[in-house]
Amino acid sequence: MILSALLTSVGINFGLCLVYFTLYSILRKQPGNADVYAPRLVAEGKLEQRNSFNLERLLPSTSWVKRAWQPSEEELFMRAGLDGVVFIRLILFSLKVVGFAAVLGLCALLPLNYMGSQIAIDISDFANTSLESFSISNVNDGSKKLWVHFGAVYAFTAFVCYLLYVEYSDISSKRLAHYYSSEPKPDQFTVLVRGIPTSSTDSLSGSVEKFFSEFYPSLYLSHYMVYHTTKIRKLISDAEKVCRKIAFLKSTEKDSQRFGRVGFCGLFGAKVDLLEYYEKKLEDLEDNVKMQQSLLTGKEVPAAFVSFKSRLGAAIALQIQQGENPTEWLTERAPEPRDIYWPFFSASFLSRWIGNVVVVVTCVVLTILFFIPVIIVQSLTHLEQLETWFPFLINVLKIAFVSQVITGYLPSLILKMFLHLVPPVMTMLSSIQGYVANSQIEKSACNKMLWFTIWNIFFANALSGSVLYRVNLILEPKEIPTILAVAVPGQATFFITYVVTNGWTNAASELFRTMPLISNFMKRIFFKETGEQIEVPSIPYSSEIPSILLFGLLGITYFYLSPLILRFLLVYYCMAYLIYRHQLLNVYSPKFETGGTFWPIVHNSTVFSLLLMHMIAVGIFGLKKLPLASSLTIPLPIITLLFNSYCRKRFLPVFKGYPAECMIKKDRSDENNPALTDFHEKLMTAYQDPALKPIQFSGRTDGHNAPLLASQA
Amino acid sequence: MILSALLTSVGINFGLCLVYFTLYSILRKQPGNADVYAPRLVAEGKLEQRNSFNLERLLPSTSWVKRAWQPSEEELFMRAGLDGVVFIRLILFSLKVVGFAAVLGLCALLPLNYMGSQIAIDISDFANTSLESFSISNVNDGSKKLWVHFGAVYAFTAFVCYLLYVEYSDISSKRLAHYYSSEPKPDQFTVLVRGIPTSSTDSLSGSVEKFFSEFYPSLYLSHYMVYHTTKIRKLISDAEKVCRKIAFLKSTEKDSQRFGRVGFCGLFGAKVDLLEYYEKKLEDLEDNVKMQQSLLTGKEVPAAFVSFKSRLGAAIALQIQQGENPTEWLTERAPEPRDIYWPFFSASFLSRWIGNVVVVVTCVVLTILFFIPVIIVQSLTHLEQLETWFPFLINVLKIAFVSQVITGYLPSLILKMFLHLVPPVMTMLSSIQGYVANSQIEKSACNKMLWFTIWNIFFANALSGSVLYRVNLILEPKEIPTILAVAVPGQATFFITYVVTNGWTNAASELFRTMPLISNFMKRIFFKETGEQIEVPSIPYSSEIPSILLFGLLGITYFYLSPLILRFLLVYYCMAYLIYRHQLLNVYSPKFETGGTFWPIVHNSTVFSLLLMHMIAVGIFGLKKLPLASSLTIPLPIITLLFNSYCRKRFLPVFKGYPAECMIKKDRSDENNPALTDFHEKLMTAYQDPALKPIQFSGRTDGHNAPLLASQA
Repeated sequence: MILSALLTSVGINFGLCLVYFTLYSILRKQPGNADVYAPRLVAEGKLEQRNSFNLERLLPSTSWVKRAWQPSEEELFMRAGLDGVVFIRLILFSLKVVGFAAVLGLCALLPLNYMGSQIAIDISDFANTSLESFSISNVNDGSKKLWVHFGAVYAFTAFVCYLLYVEYSDISSKRLAHYYSSEPKPDQFTVLVRGIPTSSTDSLSGSVEKFFSEFYPSLYLSHYMVYHTTKIRKLISDAEKVCRKIAFLKSTEKDSQRFGRVGFCGLFGAKVDLLEYYEKKLEDLEDNVKMQQSLLTGKEVPAAFVSFKSRLGAAIALQIQQGENPTEWLTERAPEPRDIYWPFFSASFLSRWIGNVVVVVTCVVLTILFFIPVIIVQSLTHLEQLETWFPFLINVLKIAFVSQVITGYLPSLILKMFLHLVPPVMTMLSSIQGYVANSQIEKSACNKMLWFTIWNIFFANALSGSVLYRVNLILEPKEIPTILAVAVPGQATFFITYVVTNGWTNAASELFRTMPLISNFMKRIFFKETGEQIEVPSIPYSSEIPSILLFGLLGITYFYLSPLILRFLLVYYCMAYLIYRHQLLNVYSPKFETGGTFWPIVHNSTVFSLLLMHMIAVGIFGLKKLPLASSLTIPLPIITLLFNSYCRKRFLPVFKGYPAECMIKKDRSDENNPALTDFHEKLMTAYQDPALKPIQFSGRTDGHNAPLLASQA
Repeated sequence: MILSALLTSVGINFGLCLVYFTLYSILRKQPGNADVYAPRLVAEGKLEQRNSFNLERLLPSTSWVKRAWQPSEEELFMRAGLDGVVFIRLILFSLKVVGFAAVLGLCALLPLNYMGSQIAIDISDFANTSLESFSISNVNDGSKKLWVHFGAVYAFTAFVCYLLYVEYSDISSKRLAHYYSSEPKPDQFTVLVRGIPTSSTDSLSGSVEKFFSEFYPSLYLSHYMVYHTTKIRKLISDAEKVCRKIAFLKSTEKDSQRFGRVGFCGLFGAKVDLLEYYEKKLEDLEDNVKMQQSLLTGKEVPAAFVSFKSRLGAAIALQIQQGENPTEWLTERAPEPRDIYWPFFSASFLSRWIGNVVVVVTCVVLTILFFIPVIIVQSLTHLEQLETWFPFLINVLKIAFVSQVITGYLPSLILKMFLHLVPPVMTMLSSIQGYVANSQIEKSACNKMLWFTIWNIFFANALSGSVLYRVNLILEPKEIPTILAVAVPGQATFFITYVVTNGWTNAASELFRTMPLISNFMKRIFFKETGEQIEVPSIPYSSEIPSILLFGLLGITYFYLSPLILRFLLVYYCMAYLIYRHQLLNVYSPKFETGGTFWPIVHNSTVFSLLLMHMIAVGIFGLKKLPLASSLTIPLPIITLLFNSYCRKRFLPVFKGYPAECMIKKDRSDENNPALTDFHEKLMTAYQDPALKPIQFSGRTDGHNAPLLASQA
């Protein structure tokens, strides 16, 4: 790809971003869009509604930047929780890494690369300069200048490791500080017990009571059984639908809509008063739910939430094998009550096992099938191949602008469309693996998505252009560095356009919230405003973290191969920093608090990126006929792995649980807390299944927010 | 190899075993050999010494067989501990497996194999029949008879899995029963704490006291610091040497030996009264030891044994991360006091880390270098190759007996000699890995030895004859079954002779105890009987378990390939059962009690053998042109792995620790035990380093068993 094609792509995307920002700064001031651009503020009632029309509402402004920039980390922590802080720290961390790389790369390496003469360059025609002349490929083979690259690799690794250590240490101490400063929370005192053995004399609930009050008489507080509630959940969701219909019928004035048929698809049967019909149906449903709720005997799942009087008590039950039979009385950490994912709770061991197998198979299949669009996209950057495939396009492709758009912009756009479909699929896959908490599902989906992204974006693109057909060679471990060294630098231009088209516009559209905007618009046009309580979204970590980490991977691997990519990454991270801060403060509201346990994913991914970078360096110094540098790079991955294993020992345990020291100190400080008795009482019902809470629909048919309130209270 | 060569080998070894048994039954009746053949009974004073000479002493008898057979498992448990019972169960388990295989193999498969016609057989000359005619190689390609083999593989796998389950379940309940019935033991109440942080205000000991009495005021009992005692240990060992010299001088009557020179190698310096000289030296050493023992301040290692008032207390400290910094206050299970391996205790983190790396490298090097003798040995079974290597031997090799000895007996003997050197090396390697207990060292050496044996005996021999040079193909996972199916059946005859030469004679020489017999004989001739307390040996699990498991592997993999091997294995296991029972009751005394934690090694190794057998079956049915049977075998390893993963969940946790239920019940039953206060007092000094116990040498120079008693008390 030549420079002008890149500039076209940058131009298009820069324009797109500007349009997004401008539109955003105008649209966000329209009162109707408050639900889209500040749902959290609306829900919290913090947004002053300005319905009066004035000119200022139509002018673009940048005040949101200031408001995103100003709040301190403490403020962010108050609003977005430790997970939000960790998320922003991830962006800041990447920014620092890319910043350091940019200093090294743009000041030292880029001029060196450009001064080389390996690739014939026509200096007079700067616009048509191949981007390769800025990459390491242009440095002459065996040149002493490569030692600068070698030094840069070492210095960069040292810097990133130092940064990783500082961040890990800082976040783990933040996690502990957060624990120390937290109010007593149900999940700190509770464990989830599974595999409760059936006994001939006691019910499951009786067994739990007996076991824990016998063995932990001074620590055991109470327990709450889990029930099969799939049927009740179904009834409640039906009732909610009927509620919504009633509300719609009440809000409409047309009589024609009030009467209709209730047979198949509303086409058959006699015409009836729909409002009356649905109200009757709702009452029936409600009775049914109440009956089901009272008929729970025998519907117990062999699982219970067992609460203890102290945090240490819960930790003892959690960490020590309880029963003589290790498949009984299995304990696991209880999630926060709001975080529990109820549907898969009652799943049997077998169905969870099958679920796991299905998920693994599906993931593999998804990864393989995803190769198809990637290969097609990849072929677009090689115009010649496209011409051989579709000969009738030759004339069209000869137009300079068309060919520039196709090579510079289209591939990434198509890839992006496909990629948008993946995160929901991954989340869905994780949810049928049998996790009992949304946070666990999110974390698992995040990991799946991360490896999917790295494999399908990075490797598939890097290797497809050159050696995909030689994928068998990957099995030859000694050859990997050489294969990577041949393939990766060749795809530098593709990844530069990827950063521009995906990174920049992703960030901008995150601010713009295209989809919620459209759906809000449709709702306002086709449905009357019904005063429905708006649902505040939570940030989708499982799709955001992997994409941010992928750009980090690109920065780390390409910083010495093709330093040109760094300035685009810098722009991306600056934008992401502002935009995500803004969104965390105004749009998203946390649905769970994991205490920063997403950080180990970031750490591992960064270490992986470093190792990949080292491997490519070993290969490229070999290819560039500097075998000494190649050999001297080999200790680097070993040192990095040692560093990583130290970090795992030093920091990871804190992210898996809390140390006894903290728990005991926290328990002691609670001893004098008069609110603890109240808390213990609340604890007894904290883990009640929402499907078993008392409901009330028909009594208040004046609005359908009643059931929502009732079942969420 | 032909049948007659095998019979020669069997004949030689059968004769050898008979000689061993006869000699043993005579020698063991000689009073002078009591230290060799019943050291345990001698040490326990249970052996009635019969010094009167009678004819019966010179006649071989089989009374020892009866005495080895009679005791029940309870009696064995009382004398050899649970580890001894598990060891005998391993032999019994193997016997059952091989017995079932023999029923299948010898009754159903062997006739089928012999009836085949794949290999041309001259029926008239039975003695020269190739052993291959009894193996699966002789079954005609594509024959329907192979379905019998297929059925046998399934039936055998089902039987072995059933047996594995029953044994695992039985041993794990035995382990719990042993725990319930045990007296309070120091290791149940104690944890080893490492990584004690240095503090500016407190000593290390003070830090431990402060930490545990602050966080576990009701549970903490006491602690015992670990000190750097390398120097003291050196001094004590010097003193013991001097003691031994004094005892020798006193026992000798010759004056010429009492006076001598004390310079370099006893060659220089003036002549002195040696007894006086050494007594003076001993006093000096004793003073030095006492001085060093009193100067321990500042020699603390950041490690301590921390004892708790209850078992649950120790488990809490063990299982929950203690300090905020996960690299501090690391807890691990404390071994029994007698089981502690003190030398490597004071090793720093770095030296342990380097030790680990060195051990890994050495293990790899040892495995690679061991190929050399194995390949040489292997070439002996191929006479033609030997003739090309050493042409001058052609004439000698033409003598039938010589060639039969060389192909039938010599290879295994040479291999055996080399193999005898390996277990001590493996134990030594494990001991520098930084384990703090002899039992841990033994277990680690057992694992090392197991994989070494499987790789170097099974794979190296199976593959060297055919495809060692194609070892790269192993990297192609799809090819493994075919490679194994080609190579493994071809080496059946080698392994049959291996069972006979190694298995039979190993077992017989275990009973005969050649080396201790010789050393005892030398001692009695060259040194007068000094009344020295005899040291009762402990059974070397690390060399015995892997060799027994290797024979199990041979039985499992060859049972349908070459069923002839099974009858030799049956003989081996019957012998081993009697002999090891006898040795456990009379010779060996347990040096530690791990509560049967060697069993998981047996389980894993057996599952591995099954998987290997399945892989070979997949390959061989393919080679024999029965692709359907080959495909239908593929589910078998998958089912086996699922079975194994279930067993890991169901039983393994019990072998890693004890469940809370057991500990709490045991603690409760102790509450009314008046002896517990005494026990708690003893606990305070249970973990004292033997080097720090008061010593007394010079006060009682009348015999040198005093220091042994003093330092072992």
